[in-house]
Amino acid sequence: MLRRLDSRAAEFRSQLQDLLAFETSQDPEVDARVAAILDDVKHRGDAALIEYTQRFDGVDTNSMAQLEITQEQLQEAFERLLPQQKDALQAAAARVRRYHEHQKASSWQYTDEDGTLLGQQVTPLDRVGIYVPGGKASYPSSVLMNAIPAHVAGVPEIIMVVPTPRGERNDLVLAAAYIAGVTRVFTLGGAQAVGALAYGTQTVPQVDKITGPGNAYVAAAKRRVFGIVGIDMVAGPSEILVICDGSTDPDWIAMDLFSQAEHDEIAQAILLCPDAAFIEQVAASIERQLPEMPRADIIRASLTGRGALIQVKDLQEACDIANWIAPEHLELSVEHPQIWLPELKHAGAIFLGKFTSEALGDYCAGPNHVLPTARTARFASPLGVYDFQKRTSLIQVSAAGAQTLGRIASTLAHGEGLQAHARSAEYRLDEK
Amino acid sequence: MLRRLDSRAAEFRSQLQDLLAFETSQDPEVDARVAAILDDVKHRGDAALIEYTQRFDGVDTNSMAQLEITQEQLQEAFERLLPQQKDALQAAAARVRRYHEHQKASSWQYTDEDGTLLGQQVTPLDRVGIYVPGGKASYPSSVLMNAIPAHVAGVPEIIMVVPTPRGERNDLVLAAAYIAGVTRVFTLGGAQAVGALAYGTQTVPQVDKITGPGNAYVAAAKRRVFGIVGIDMVAGPSEILVICDGSTDPDWIAMDLFSQAEHDEIAQAILLCPDAAFIEQVAASIERQLPEMPRADIIRASLTGRGALIQVKDLQEACDIANWIAPEHLELSVEHPQIWLPELKHAGAIFLGKFTSEALGDYCAGPNHVLPTARTARFASPLGVYDFQKRTSLIQVSAAGAQTLGRIASTLAHGEGLQAHARSAEYRLDEK
Repeated sequence: MLRRLDSRAAEFRSQLQDLLAFETSQDPEVDARVAAILDDVKHRGDAALIEYTQRFDGVDTNSMAQLEITQEQLQEAFERLLPQQKDALQAAAARVRRYHEHQKASSWQYTDEDGTLLGQQVTPLDRVGIYVPGGKASYPSSVLMNAIPAHVAGVPEIIMVVPTPRGERNDLVLAAAYIAGVTRVFTLGGAQAVGALAYGTQTVPQVDKITGPGNAYVAAAKRRVFGIVGIDMVAGPSEILVICDGSTDPDWIAMDLFSQAEHDEIAQAILLCPDAAFIEQVAASIERQLPEMPRADIIRASLTGRGALIQVKDLQEACDIANWIAPEHLELSVEHPQIWLPELKHAGAIFLGKFTSEALGDYCAGPNHVLPTARTARFASPLGVYDFQKRTSLIQVSAAGAQTLGRIASTLAHGEGLQAHARSAEYRLDEK
Repeated sequence: MLRRLDSRAAEFRSQLQDLLAFETSQDPEVDARVAAILDDVKHRGDAALIEYTQRFDGVDTNSMAQLEITQEQLQEAFERLLPQQKDALQAAAARVRRYHEHQKASSWQYTDEDGTLLGQQVTPLDRVGIYVPGGKASYPSSVLMNAIPAHVAGVPEIIMVVPTPRGERNDLVLAAAYIAGVTRVFTLGGAQAVGALAYGTQTVPQVDKITGPGNAYVAAAKRRVFGIVGIDMVAGPSEILVICDGSTDPDWIAMDLFSQAEHDEIAQAILLCPDAAFIEQVAASIERQLPEMPRADIIRASLTGRGALIQVKDLQEACDIANWIAPEHLELSVEHPQIWLPELKHAGAIFLGKFTSEALGDYCAGPNHVLPTARTARFASPLGVYDFQKRTSLIQVSAAGAQTLGRIASTLAHGEGLQAHARSAEYRLDEK
């Protein structure tokens, strides 16, 4: 079922390039519809939100009050969970919180020889919006992964939006919001929810940044409001790259590939391995285990369409290919993973050793599961506390510093033809 | 000439809102032309670059070799400068470098009770592109401010593009590239330069992130390639907000307002002051000094169109208004600036005390002059070393950790209907 590639083949690089090819669709039709929805929400506010929510989500409502979920309702949703679910959510939240505490940046400053103070002040954002998908792809873990870093950063107001198609609310999602410290929850989705957060309406407060995954409409809306508010990355389909030396149980590797493939028909699961016999064992395990999986159809479509088992020369070559791919998730399922870690430059997250299945990282190990996709790990980072903090430069020039700096600034400003800049520096000189 | 506002007026908030109103234009016609240029560069590479550079920049060339500036030519440009200019550029570069060294983030990790290792690996980007505007708004200081943070981050390859209308090269700009450690320089501009960096051509290498200011075409192109490469903020017109208690020389304040206004007819300069008499002194100084300025026409257009002198109740109210405005540059020209600093939450950079004219910060104090504009300081930060580093999460679960984490992950995965996730966690349990 799965395509096999061999790194020694002459056409390997172009095969790999074709396999990876995925451009975030910027469908002009979607974009035009999104532009119209955003404009409508901007100008008509709540009235537009109610109409779109009736039309797109099939929610029978005529007031914004019905589209807000209270803290009491969030708590009730939590109370309705099984004890085992409550424990798992709380344990995951505690671990995610502890990990993210390590990311908090602090203000710093220093004083130079002239007595000039320089530094950077780090402060949390005032208010952020979290988009949580609804319906069948409704993930409580996403609520934790978006809200907890904001909470750790010290953001005072966290506004969550989640569509509830035909009015169906997901207790696990609401319970996660309760545990993660979300301030307000609105049952809104699509471009209209993004518009509400970006512009504010009579009821929905305007936020400073919007994070969280969504469909093509949500992605197009986020791209459009970028600049009015901050956004996180526009995410592509999920991916896993497994590097295995052949020492891990092939059933484990097959299941790890499935765990990515089951997300989406266009998710991508790739194995890099120097051991041809092991690759065949994994292939056999895939055939054997696939029929048992409830989401077998999605997995099959993903593996057939975008998956690959790739034989490589050795682990060094596997690392080189991994750097070119810059995968979202990278499992380094080898006997001595720390030896190979320094060779890996680009990945959203690296899962080291055979016990570290990607699923553990997705839910509860601690690190964030919102990761750069589609080769963007070349320049982007996992969602983190740093996404909910911002920096302000501080400069307090002393009387003495103004003499040194003033002369330099004056020379450069004249060189750029900006005489007001030059003169404003020169005014601070003792001798003009 | 300048409009006067009073914070006690009933209509003040709406006046302020109108004054600040500025939406990054997303002109559909510009966008369509940019899309066509990007597509052309993507598919035809160098040939397209040569054609556009002939057409838009009036450069008479038929080979890419003529559009690259060698390291020798950069050095020659530096040698041609006046001694005073060489010293000023080098002093500015050294101070900018020293300040930015403070921003370098480091990798970290910890081990939890179960022996599971968690952390984050921080690495530089491989290759970045810096867009430098050409022609009349050609600023060597921008070269330093974009290239030095990348260099401090450890980026091995820094590719600069700068248009040279009618073939005119600016020695100061090339000398700055020489000093700042730029790897290669191409005389390209506009959307075609952005396309070359984003997709790569036969000659121009593909980069991982593009930073630097540009006109509407450059901004639209950066917005379009966002996702294929990283970009910094899409910048709006420059702004200064001065808070003054009336203790600074009014001529200094007037000149500080000019130094922002002279950038652009749509730049914004605003004064907040509780002292009505001082406001009149500044207004008189503006009238008196304006005719002396070489860029008087631009300054007048900017001050008349978008400037304001605003009388406030007291300095506390000035800080509150400043937080709402979230200005790019904030001068706190008061006698005891440190008292008011804790009241200020949102600004790109804060210039404390009367000796700290914004111009000193623009050129040589040390902090970056690429700052968030148009109220984006609510969520965005100055350009910094952190823009040229990225993070990779690290997880190495121990055999013991796999037992605890596996149970949590399994419960949550079943709750989300993702059975392959659950099973991949369960495979790592001792008792299944």
